[in-house]
Amino acid sequence: MAKLLPQVLKGFRVYLPEVMIPRQRMLRTIAEVFERFGFVPLDTPALEYAELLTGKYGDEGEGLLYRFADHGGRQIALRYDLTVPLARVMGGHPELPIPFKRYQIGPVWRAEKPGRGRFREFSQCDVDIVGSTSMVADFECLQVDAAVLRALGLERFRIRVNNRKLLDGILEHHGCTTPDRVVATLRAVDKLEKAGQEPVIALLVQEAGWDAAAAADLLQQLAGSTLDFPFTNPRLEEGRQELSQLFTLAARVGIEPYLGLDLTIARGLDYYTGTVFETFLTDLPGFGSVMSGGRYDGLVGLFRSQPLPAVGISLGVDRLLAGLTELGLLPPVRSTARVLLAVFGPETLGETLLVAAELRAAGIPTEVFPSEGGKLGKQYKYADQKGISVVGLVGPEEQTANTVKLKVLADQRELTVPRAALVSEVLGLLQG
Amino acid sequence: MAKLLPQVLKGFRVYLPEVMIPRQRMLRTIAEVFERFGFVPLDTPALEYAELLTGKYGDEGEGLLYRFADHGGRQIALRYDLTVPLARVMGGHPELPIPFKRYQIGPVWRAEKPGRGRFREFSQCDVDIVGSTSMVADFECLQVDAAVLRALGLERFRIRVNNRKLLDGILEHHGCTTPDRVVATLRAVDKLEKAGQEPVIALLVQEAGWDAAAAADLLQQLAGSTLDFPFTNPRLEEGRQELSQLFTLAARVGIEPYLGLDLTIARGLDYYTGTVFETFLTDLPGFGSVMSGGRYDGLVGLFRSQPLPAVGISLGVDRLLAGLTELGLLPPVRSTARVLLAVFGPETLGETLLVAAELRAAGIPTEVFPSEGGKLGKQYKYADQKGISVVGLVGPEEQTANTVKLKVLADQRELTVPRAALVSEVLGLLQG
Repeated sequence: MAKLLPQVLKGFRVYLPEVMIPRQRMLRTIAEVFERFGFVPLDTPALEYAELLTGKYGDEGEGLLYRFADHGGRQIALRYDLTVPLARVMGGHPELPIPFKRYQIGPVWRAEKPGRGRFREFSQCDVDIVGSTSMVADFECLQVDAAVLRALGLERFRIRVNNRKLLDGILEHHGCTTPDRVVATLRAVDKLEKAGQEPVIALLVQEAGWDAAAAADLLQQLAGSTLDFPFTNPRLEEGRQELSQLFTLAARVGIEPYLGLDLTIARGLDYYTGTVFETFLTDLPGFGSVMSGGRYDGLVGLFRSQPLPAVGISLGVDRLLAGLTELGLLPPVRSTARVLLAVFGPETLGETLLVAAELRAAGIPTEVFPSEGGKLGKQYKYADQKGISVVGLVGPEEQTANTVKLKVLADQRELTVPRAALVSEVLGLLQG
Repeated sequence: MAKLLPQVLKGFRVYLPEVMIPRQRMLRTIAEVFERFGFVPLDTPALEYAELLTGKYGDEGEGLLYRFADHGGRQIALRYDLTVPLARVMGGHPELPIPFKRYQIGPVWRAEKPGRGRFREFSQCDVDIVGSTSMVADFECLQVDAAVLRALGLERFRIRVNNRKLLDGILEHHGCTTPDRVVATLRAVDKLEKAGQEPVIALLVQEAGWDAAAAADLLQQLAGSTLDFPFTNPRLEEGRQELSQLFTLAARVGIEPYLGLDLTIARGLDYYTGTVFETFLTDLPGFGSVMSGGRYDGLVGLFRSQPLPAVGISLGVDRLLAGLTELGLLPPVRSTARVLLAVFGPETLGETLLVAAELRAAGIPTEVFPSEGGKLGKQYKYADQKGISVVGLVGPEEQTANTVKLKVLADQRELTVPRAALVSEVLGLLQG
C-alpha cells in the first residue's frame, strides 16, 4: 500500500503526552472539586438527532453544526454543547432525583473558522444544578468556581457577578422592553470589555435602536459598582435582592474577596434569566473569562411538560490550561514514570523485571526499557528525553551482590544500593 | 416553542450517574495501572480524513464508518478505533521518543446493527508499545493485562496466549500459505470458541479451501496445549521461541498462574503478526474476552518512511464494566456525596454552609440541599433516593448550642454532636 500522509483535519488537534499529562491532572482536580460538592458525572452521546439541536444556538451557531444523514437516512449532528443534551436527559428521565446536580466533561464540535485558540473540536466542562430556584444554588456555583481555581493553585482571580433581572430593570427604565431590543442591547453590552465604550455605543445605536445620549447614560450606569440607582421598578428590585443575597452569603462563608459586582457582565447567550458571572485571572489581563455561567430557567422545559429552573457553570478547559501553564502552575510533564529501569542483557532481565514490580508495588511508577539489552547509552538518553530523573540498572555484578545501581540524570550522580534499601533510596532521590 | 421529544439515537446511550460513577472509578483505576507502568496518555480527534480510515478495516468494517462531507467539502469520518489514529500520530511526530508507550481511552463510532450489548458509540481503552521488537514489550502487555484485572479486584481470570507465527508454521505444514487462505483460515479458527468444531470445519472447507479431513486434523492440533509438534519449520520455530520466552518471563515474575497457552486464539484482525492473546473471566464462562491484543508490526509503517513494530492491548470498557458489576466487584453508586446537609431555614443557612465547608475541607464530599429551607421530609427523601447515608441539620437550637444534628438513614439513628467533634463523628458514622 502507498504511504499515507499523517494529516490532521484543520481546526482539530492531537494532544501529545506532554500536554495530555498536565491536562488530565487539571481535569482530575476539577472533577474532585465537583464531587466534593456532591455533583455526579453524566455522559451523553456525541451524535444527536439534528432537530434536537436546531433552533437553540441562533442562526450563526446553527450554521456551525456538523450535520449529516446516517446510514438509515436520519438527519443527525455532532453535539454543539453539553447544555442541550442535559436538558434532554432531564426530559427523558423523570425518575432522576431533583435537584439534579451533574457535571459533564467532553468534546463538542463546531465548524468555526479555525484561528488562534479557536478549534473545531474542543472540550467543555459543565456543572449544573437543575430544579432549584433558590439563590443557594447560584451561590454554590460561585463557591465551586472559587474552589476549582483555588484547588488549581490560583488565588488571584475575580468572579464578576451580575443579574439579568437587574439589567432588565435598568433597560426598562430606559424604555427598552421588547425582547428583540433587549437581546440586541445585552449582546452589545457583553462586548464592552473587549471592544470598549465607543464601539458599543455605536452598536447600541445601530443594532438596538438607542439614541446616542441614552446609550452613553446606560453605559455610565453600568460602569458603577453599587446597587443604588436613582430609579427603581419591580424587575430591578428582584435582581437587586438576588444579588444582595449572593453577596451576603459570600461574606458569611469567606469567598467575598473573590467576588465583584460588575453590571457590564451580560453573557451573550439568550437563555440566561437571572444570575450571570464570568471569571478573570488577575495576572492575565486581557486573557478572557476562564469560567462563566448563570441561571437559565427556561431551557430545560423545552423537553418536559413541567419547566425546571437551572443554574450552572461552563469552564473553558483549554483556556484554563493555557492560563495555568502561562502562570507556571502546571509545569509540563513528559512522563508518568518516575524511574526507568535499563536492561543490561538477557541474563539479568528477570531480575530487572522483579525490581520493577517491587518499585511499582511501592507506588513508584516505573518503566522497563522494552528490550533484552543493547546499548545503555540509548536507554539513558530515552530517560532523559522523557524527563525521567532516575535510571536503575541491574548488571551481572549487581545481580550477584543483590544490589541495584541508580543514576540521577540531573547531576550524573551514581550510587549502588542493596535491594533491601531500594524503595527508600529511590523515594529519597525522587524527593531530593 | 413546541415541546421536543427527549429522544436518543438508536444504538447510542446516556450514561446516568449510577452507571457513570462506578464506570469512572473503574477507568481511573485502569489509568493508574497504565501510568504505574510508565504509559503516557494521548488524545486524538474524533473526526479524521475519511481516506485515512478506509482500506484498514475490511469491507465490512468500512461500511460501518460514519462518513460525510464537511462544510469545506472534505470527506471526513468519525474514528472507528484508536489504533489507526495512533499509527498516524507516530507518522506525524518523528520527535516522539521511541519506544513510545501510550494509552488512550475514548469513544469510537461504528454504524452496527444495534443489539444486545452492541452499540454504535462505545469506548475503547488501548495501551500500546510502539518501536520495540523485543518480547519484553509483549510480556509487559501481559503483565499490564493481569495488573489491571487484579487492581479491579479480580483474581480468577485466564489470559490465553498464542502466536501468529506459530499458527503460520502449522498452516504451512498443511500447505496453507497464500495470504488469502491464511486470513480465511485464521478468521474461521477465531470463531472456534463461539461456534464450536463442526461449523468451523464447514467454514474451513467452504471459505478457506481445506478438505474436511485436513481441517479436522488442524483443529485437533490446535486443541493441544503444548508446543510439541511432530513436524517443524522455521516459521513455527520462531513462534515457538517467542512463546517460550513469554512463559519463562511469566514464571520468573509470578504471573504464570494467570496465563495459558491456547493455540485456537487467532484474533480476527488481519494485522496481527506475532503474539496474540485474549482474557477470560473464569467465573463468567461464555462472557467473551474482556482484554485482548497482540503484536502488529506492519500497521504503523503505513504512515512513515520507516516501519515501526508495535504491540498492544485493547480493553472492552463496557464489557468489563458489565462483568465486574455481575461479579459484585463494582457496586452501583448513585452519589458522590457522603453527607447531605439539609437546610432548616434562612436564619441557619449561613451556618449550614460553614458546616459544609468544614466537612469538605476534611475530605468528606458534602452536598447542601439547594434551598432556603422548606420541608425537611423532602430533603431526607432526596438523600435516601441518592443513597447518601448521613444527613446533617443545623436548626435554631443547634445553632445556639454550636452543635449539628446527624441522622443515619439506614437505621434512623439520630445524634447531636458538638461542632468541635463534627468531623471525627461523621467519619466514624461513614465507616461504621
